Amino acid sequence: MTDSDHILLAHGGGGELSDALVRTEILSRFPSRELARMADSAVLDFPGTRLAFTTDGYVVRPLFFHGGDIGRLCVAGTVNDLLMSGARPLALALGVIVRDGFPMADFRRVLDSVAATAREAGVEVVAGDTKTVDRDAADGLFLTTSGVGVVPEGRQLDYAAARDGDAVLVSGTMGDHGIAIMAEREQLGFETPVATDAAPLVELVEALLAASPGARCLKDPTRGGLAAALNEIARAAGRTIVLDESAVPVRDAVAGACDLLGLDPLTVANEGKLVAVVPADEAAPALAAMRGARYGEAAALIGRVQDGRPRVIGTSALGGQRIVEMPYGEDLPRIC
Amino acid sequence: MTDSDHILLAHGGGGELSDALVRTEILSRFPSRELARMADSAVLDFPGTRLAFTTDGYVVRPLFFHGGDIGRLCVAGTVNDLLMSGARPLALALGVIVRDGFPMADFRRVLDSVAATAREAGVEVVAGDTKTVDRDAADGLFLTTSGVGVVPEGRQLDYAAARDGDAVLVSGTMGDHGIAIMAEREQLGFETPVATDAAPLVELVEALLAASPGARCLKDPTRGGLAAALNEIARAAGRTIVLDESAVPVRDAVAGACDLLGLDPLTVANEGKLVAVVPADEAAPALAAMRGARYGEAAALIGRVQDGRPRVIGTSALGGQRIVEMPYGEDLPRIC
Repeated sequence: MTDSDHILLAHGGGGELSDALVRTEILSRFPSRELARMADSAVLDFPGTRLAFTTDGYVVRPLFFHGGDIGRLCVAGTVNDLLMSGARPLALALGVIVRDGFPMADFRRVLDSVAATAREAGVEVVAGDTKTVDRDAADGLFLTTSGVGVVPEGRQLDYAAARDGDAVLVSGTMGDHGIAIMAEREQLGFETPVATDAAPLVELVEALLAASPGARCLKDPTRGGLAAALNEIARAAGRTIVLDESAVPVRDAVAGACDLLGLDPLTVANEGKLVAVVPADEAAPALAAMRGARYGEAAALIGRVQDGRPRVIGTSALGGQRIVEMPYGEDLPRIC
Repeated sequence: MTDSDHILLAHGGGGELSDALVRTEILSRFPSRELARMADSAVLDFPGTRLAFTTDGYVVRPLFFHGGDIGRLCVAGTVNDLLMSGARPLALALGVIVRDGFPMADFRRVLDSVAATAREAGVEVVAGDTKTVDRDAADGLFLTTSGVGVVPEGRQLDYAAARDGDAVLVSGTMGDHGIAIMAEREQLGFETPVATDAAPLVELVEALLAASPGARCLKDPTRGGLAAALNEIARAAGRTIVLDESAVPVRDAVAGACDLLGLDPLTVANEGKLVAVVPADEAAPALAAMRGARYGEAAALIGRVQDGRPRVIGTSALGGQRIVEMPYGEDLPRIC
């Protein structure tokens, strides 16, 4: 893991190593203020309005898993990245890279899933491209989804906007997606199988932002999980986030699987959840709004922003404290 | 090639088989008027303006070749797709999929090339994503570039707009990119090596559209070459294109390599060229404008649109005629 002459699998994990790669190799070459924000979408000043623009690659393995597949994942992920920037998703573009000999039935199944999830999110796929590669040049199918959206006048979400005393909320249980994938891969037998949470959060975000007009920022805790998401916000805001670990919703099956696999549920990926930082006096209405919306039933208040060094402190029910670190590399490769 | 149960390498070739895959498997699932146009970019009615949006995957092998690399290719390709829709390129998003163990020096070299080509095109990379996959899951690095641009008020380029009597122009020599790649791959020794033509055509298109305000459509003859580009225009317009084959500029080295490899230069990919259909009385100023712009020195008038069945008829200097077919599959796999 100390080889600096090669790309490592861990460079894609969404943790410290990903962050370092982006900072040293990408940001240095591309002098864009929007890129440097490292937010979920770029927001561009467009004649007469503000445009959100984002892209994400999907390399998950296996392609099909309990509750979803790479097609649902790619639409949910890109739509959610637009939503996290405060944008209303407008349109998607789909790039497919697929190997020679890939089963046509699986190809159709993936496209059906892309189409169904786009319909659910109320967004059109307006552009696309398919490239084929030799049989041994890729192990299946990779998708890259890009999205554009409109940020309504006056809306400004920014990780750096978090203030002392703000409430930190999550929209539901943590770790479902990562454990659904691992269960599939490791053939873990659950009494009740864990399904991916992959979902487009259009309705949830609309309800949340209507109830909390002062919301500071939204973030989807994907690769690197809640731990990475909170650390990114803490760093951008230059403040401490105090996390009440016992308040973080985690399914029993997910907690059990994490024990079994030696994983921390806080670092496991989610694909249909969000973290919201809102002013303290908007926490109650924001929670109520999320709980009343699809995919938000288990929303919870999990922490506070406070003055202090940019880091995340976890407190347990017994009063213990620990630093919740930014994950280093890749606990779960090819999770999305 | 008759296996309909699997994706074939030829499905990515930009010919009949690609077209069939898109029509039967993609358009049927995604009910978007813009997608159905199958143009180089989607054009979206955006509050107050029109937005062009496009995506393209790049899987070229080798990654580095005479005159360019996958990084230059991906920026040129996506910028050109925006330009072909009449848009001014505004911003790019870069999706990287790279295998574990990929040399960091090559990774940097590709990014340097992306950055330099974006600077040349005057467009910012504002969003990005990097995914890593296992060592044996991909044979190197794949890029997917998406772009957004603004279509100026009143500009409307459409393949279907070609009219009887219109002039068909190309901006320069055909087949350079494909032959540059094949030469690299087959270790062909040329006295003067053929370089890729990969280039962003921002200045060329600006000059052309200023000189030909009535231009009907632009198209970049990439996969499938000039033959695919002209057939697509003929089909969309429901008219015949008569191509004067002796007027098509082809470098001697490219013609020689095509002879050697059994290829038709009209079906070989270009990555820094365009086809323009313009009203007959704007042909001369359009040609002059292109010839005065960077990358347009060898621009030529190569044909006419006329009433007739949607097809392309090639005429030789000796007066012979042939149907220039839409290429079927993949002459040159992984050319871009």
